Amino acid sequence: MKAIILFGHGARDPRWREPFDRLATLWRAQHLGTPVEVAFLEMMQPSLEEAVASLAGSGATQVTVVPVFFGQGGHLRNDFPVLLDDCREKFPQIALSATPAVGEDLAVLQAIIDFSAKAL
Amino acid sequence: MKAIILFGHGARDPRWREPFDRLATLWRAQHLGTPVEVAFLEMMQPSLEEAVASLAGSGATQVTVVPVFFGQGGHLRNDFPVLLDDCREKFPQIALSATPAVGEDLAVLQAIIDFSAKAL
Repeated sequence: MKAIILFGHGARDPRWREPFDRLATLWRAQHLGTPVEVAFLEMMQPSLEEAVASLAGSGATQVTVVPVFFGQGGHLRNDFPVLLDDCREKFPQIALSATPAVGEDLAVLQAIIDFSAKAL
Repeated sequence: MKAIILFGHGARDPRWREPFDRLATLWRAQHLGTPVEVAFLEMMQPSLEEAVASLAGSGATQVTVVPVFFGQGGHLRNDFPVLLDDCREKFPQIALSATPAVGEDLAVLQAIIDFSAKAL
């Protein structure tokens, strides 16, 4: 079974996660057969490992991690591959892959442009 | 003249800003009559104040700041309003307003969902 993890940075303010929870709700409404978890690099739960464990427990065998970041800096270039490799070691039964950051996607950028234009 | 500032967090890795520069390029291609600047909260230049100064120098009188953040945590709830008020004091000739974070916009979230679904 395929599953997806929406992976964000995390922050001290608990309200910071609201868009991530909204993303998970949208995903569940539109892709019912593909379980989703959010996960965070730091300061918020669950961690990437906890999210993979949860999906493994639900019977997932292929998990795609989507970094919900704009830029690809040190977190995504250095910290994230290490976390991903740790998860691969701990869950060898799961085929774990990752996409580029969502900020690399032209349609995401265009949605930001359209939002900005409406605000003028 | 109206103008827009795309305001991001900033990061140590200079490649982190690539999506922000791409957003500015997209904006210029689609909204030629409305100048755009990127600006960063920390670790990258220009600052919000430097971007407002640049746009003021180009004749802008109404500047809309779009926070290119997913979540609204401490940075947007606490730091950003102070920066915005500082700019209002320093540039009283500019009508300075701000939108919610782009992560509050349903179309932006839907674009992230669509990107994720394509990756499965």
